[in-house]
Amino acid sequence: MRKIYILFFLVSMVSFAQTADEAQLRKIYDVSLTNGKAYDWLNHLSNQIGGRLSGSMQAQQAVDYTKAQLDLLGLDRVWLQPVMVPKWVRGTPEFAYFESTPGTSTNVPICALGGSVATKPGGLKANLIEVQGVEELASLGREKIEGKIVFFNRPFDQKLISTFDAYAGCVDQRYIGAAEASKYGAVGIIVRSMSSRLDDLPHTGAMSYGEIPVKDRIPAAAISTKGANLLSTTLKLNADIKFYFKQNCVQLEDVKSYNVIGEITGSKYPNEIMVVGGHLDSWDLGDGSHDDGAGCVQSMDVLRLLKETGYKPLRTIRVVLFMNEENGLRGGNEYAKVATTKKENHVFALESDAGGFTPRGFSFDCSDANFEMIKGWEDLFEPYLIHMFVRGESGADIDPLKNSEILLAGLRPDLQRYFDHHHAANDTFEHVNKRELQMGAATMASLVYLVDKYGVIPSKKIKG
Amino acid sequence: MRKIYILFFLVSMVSFAQTADEAQLRKIYDVSLTNGKAYDWLNHLSNQIGGRLSGSMQAQQAVDYTKAQLDLLGLDRVWLQPVMVPKWVRGTPEFAYFESTPGTSTNVPICALGGSVATKPGGLKANLIEVQGVEELASLGREKIEGKIVFFNRPFDQKLISTFDAYAGCVDQRYIGAAEASKYGAVGIIVRSMSSRLDDLPHTGAMSYGEIPVKDRIPAAAISTKGANLLSTTLKLNADIKFYFKQNCVQLEDVKSYNVIGEITGSKYPNEIMVVGGHLDSWDLGDGSHDDGAGCVQSMDVLRLLKETGYKPLRTIRVVLFMNEENGLRGGNEYAKVATTKKENHVFALESDAGGFTPRGFSFDCSDANFEMIKGWEDLFEPYLIHMFVRGESGADIDPLKNSEILLAGLRPDLQRYFDHHHAANDTFEHVNKRELQMGAATMASLVYLVDKYGVIPSKKIKG
Repeated sequence: MRKIYILFFLVSMVSFAQTADEAQLRKIYDVSLTNGKAYDWLNHLSNQIGGRLSGSMQAQQAVDYTKAQLDLLGLDRVWLQPVMVPKWVRGTPEFAYFESTPGTSTNVPICALGGSVATKPGGLKANLIEVQGVEELASLGREKIEGKIVFFNRPFDQKLISTFDAYAGCVDQRYIGAAEASKYGAVGIIVRSMSSRLDDLPHTGAMSYGEIPVKDRIPAAAISTKGANLLSTTLKLNADIKFYFKQNCVQLEDVKSYNVIGEITGSKYPNEIMVVGGHLDSWDLGDGSHDDGAGCVQSMDVLRLLKETGYKPLRTIRVVLFMNEENGLRGGNEYAKVATTKKENHVFALESDAGGFTPRGFSFDCSDANFEMIKGWEDLFEPYLIHMFVRGESGADIDPLKNSEILLAGLRPDLQRYFDHHHAANDTFEHVNKRELQMGAATMASLVYLVDKYGVIPSKKIKG
Repeated sequence: MRKIYILFFLVSMVSFAQTADEAQLRKIYDVSLTNGKAYDWLNHLSNQIGGRLSGSMQAQQAVDYTKAQLDLLGLDRVWLQPVMVPKWVRGTPEFAYFESTPGTSTNVPICALGGSVATKPGGLKANLIEVQGVEELASLGREKIEGKIVFFNRPFDQKLISTFDAYAGCVDQRYIGAAEASKYGAVGIIVRSMSSRLDDLPHTGAMSYGEIPVKDRIPAAAISTKGANLLSTTLKLNADIKFYFKQNCVQLEDVKSYNVIGEITGSKYPNEIMVVGGHLDSWDLGDGSHDDGAGCVQSMDVLRLLKETGYKPLRTIRVVLFMNEENGLRGGNEYAKVATTKKENHVFALESDAGGFTPRGFSFDCSDANFEMIKGWEDLFEPYLIHMFVRGESGADIDPLKNSEILLAGLRPDLQRYFDHHHAANDTFEHVNKRELQMGAATMASLVYLVDKYGVIPSKKIKG
C-alpha cells in the first residue's frame, strides 16, 4: 500500500513538474513570437551599423549599441571586457581577370581572404595550376608550382546533408592553402569560394600563414563558384592562360576592443555561471546578419525572455557577445582566461553561431549523465518542432571554457542555406526571417531555463 | 537450438532489409542533391512561363512544358487528362486609397481576391467598418454595415508554431467574407492579407459568393498587412474616413485545360496505383514557385529519381500535375472521378503543396496499421533530418481519392516562411533554395520507394 502511495506521489510530482515546464516554455515562445526584440536589434546591427570586422569603426559601434541595449533591459550587471584584437583592412575593391587568348581578358569576381597580404601595387600576373586540395601540392612538387598561382578548386560535396560537413571538407584550402603553396614556390593562391551555391559572390574567411615570415607571404583570394568553374573549364582548353589579380589589403597593429557582457545574478547559486552568446564581429562584405548578428541578438533576447516571462534564475545567467571570432578568437580566449583568473565556476555555455534559420535542435559537448538528462526533455521541445539532440561540437567562442564539468551546447538551426550567405556580400538582413530568428531565441531560452532549473550534473557526483 | 537459428535468421533478414533500404535512400538523396532536375524545371516554369492561373495562356504553356519534360523521362505512359476549368482574369492593376482629411488621400496596396467581381468602372467609395472576423457581422447588424465597405482585419496568431494553423484561423474572412457581409448590405470588402509578415504585398486567394446571385455580388480585395495596420490606426482616429478602390476583374466562361500525368507501370502489381503530385496552376501575382511549382517539379523528379537509382517499382507509380487547385479543384475532382469510372485501385497518394522549403516530414491520413508501418521507417529518414511523422491532412488535390483503404500523405516542409510568399508577388524563384527543394524531392521519393516495396496494409487483412 505504501509503495503504491509513493508511486502515486512520484507520478504526481513528475506530472506537476512537466506541466510547469510546459507552461514556461509556452510562455517563452509566446513572448518571443509576439514581442521578441531579436529581429529589431538585428535590423539596427545590420542596417544602421553593417559589417563589423574586428578593429573597425563598425565593430566599436556594435559594442556601444549592444551595451546600451543591454543597459535598457534592467539586468543586474552590464560591462565591457577589454581585449586586444587584430585589425585587418581590405582596402579598395579587389580586381581579377584571366587572359585566355592574347589581347582578351575575362573578369572574375574575387575578394581577398582575411589576413592575406596585398599583391604588389601593380597586381600579380602569372600562370595557374589547378589543384583539388592541399594534399595534391606534394605530388606536383616545386617543379610544377614554382612561379605560378595555385588555384584550389575542391568544391563542396553536395551529397552531405550537413553543409557544415561539406564546409569542413574544403576549408583547409582556404585556411592553409597559401602557407602550403608558398613552400613550393607559388606566388599567390586563388581559392574556390566555400559555398553550396553556384553564383557570382566570392566568400572571404580567415587564413593563416603559420610561421612563414612576412616577407615570404603570398597573396590569397577567394573566387566565386561560377568564376571557379569558368576558370577550370578554360584551363582545360588552355593550360597556359595568365591570371591577374590585385588587392591592397593590410594587417595593421592590434587595437583595443571588447566583449560585451550582461548578467542576471542567480538567486540561489550565484556562483554557478551559465553563458549564452554569439560573436559580435563579422566579415566586412555583407552586414553579418546570419554570421553572427543573429546569434548575438538571440542571446540578448534569451535574458530578456526569461525576465519577461517572470522567471527568476537560480544560477547566474550571462549573455556574452564575443569579439573577434572570425579572425583571431581573441574574445573567446580572453573570456575564458579571465574566468580562470577569477576562479569563476562556469557550469553551462550555449552558443548560437550557425545562422538565424529555423531552429532544429542542439549539439552537446558534455558528459553522458548530462546528455541523458537533456534527452529527457525532448518531449518538452516537440511542440516547437525541435527534434535534434545530438552530441558534437558546441561553438568556437565557448570552446575555451571546456573542462570535464561544463555542459557546452550549440544551437543547430536548419543548415541548407547557411553557406549561400556565409562570409559573402549577401549575408544581409533581408535573408533573415523574423519568425525563424525568434523561434531560435525561444529555443535557446527554453534550454537555458531547463538547465538553470535542474542544474548540471557534476561528474564526481556520489551515486545513491 | 532451432529457435536460436530462426531468431538469427530473422535478425539477418531484418538487418539485410534495413541495409538495402538504407542504401536505396542514400542513392535517392545522392542523385537528387548532385543531379536533381526539380530546380531546373522550376526555373523554366517560374522564369520562362510565370504565374499559371487556370485558363490562362501560361497554364497551357505549363501543361505543354511539363508533358514534354515527362516525355523525355522514358516513362511507360504520359498523357493529358482533359478538365474544364474556371477562367477568372484580374484585368488592369487594382488601385485603392483612403481619405482621412478632406482633400488628402493615402494609397494602400490591394489586389482583387480570386473570383471577385469588379467594382463599377469608376470604382467604389464608401465608409469603412472594421471587424475582426465573420462572426462579428451578426452582432453589428445591418444598421451598422449597410452601405459600407467591411474591413476584415483579424491577423495571424503569431504564437502558433504552424503557420498553417494561423492561416486556418483567418482564411474564412477571405473565403466567405464577401458573401456574409453582403447579407447585411455591405457594398464591398477589404481583407487583411493572409501573411505572417508585415509588408506592402497584398495576398490574393480564392473566395466564394456561395448561392448569392451575380447581380448581388460585392467586390472583394486583399490589402497588405502594413496597409491594414495603417487603415486600422487611421480608423481609430477618424471612423468617418472614406475608402476607395477600383478593380476590373472578370469571370469568363469555363475553358478546357488538363491534368498532366505520367506513369511507370508496376512490374508486379500494375493495378495498384500510387500517385505523387502537386498542382500546376498558381495565382497570377508572382510566378508560383513555392505554390505549387515546387510540388510539381518535386513530384516529377520522384519518378526520375526512382529510375535513375535503378529501382523498378512493383506497383504503378504516377505523377499527376493537377490543374486548378487554387480556384476550383477541378483537376483533383476530375482525376478522382475518372479513377472511379475506370475502377482504378489507388493504394497511395502523396502531395507536395506547402512550398519548396527544407523537408521536415509527412502528415498521414490513413489507418492505424499503415501509420504504424510508416513509423517503423523513422530511423531510415533520420540521417536526412526528417523527423515529423504525424497524422493529419494530406492535400487538397488527392483528398477526393480518399476511401477506407488508401494511404494519403502530405509532405511537410519547414513552414515558417511559407505565408510570407503565399499568393503574393514575392512567390518567386529566387525564394526557393535548390538544396531545400531537392531534399524535398528525395524525401518524397524515399517514401514512395518504401510504400511501393512493402505495400499498403488493407483494412480487411485477415490476421495471422
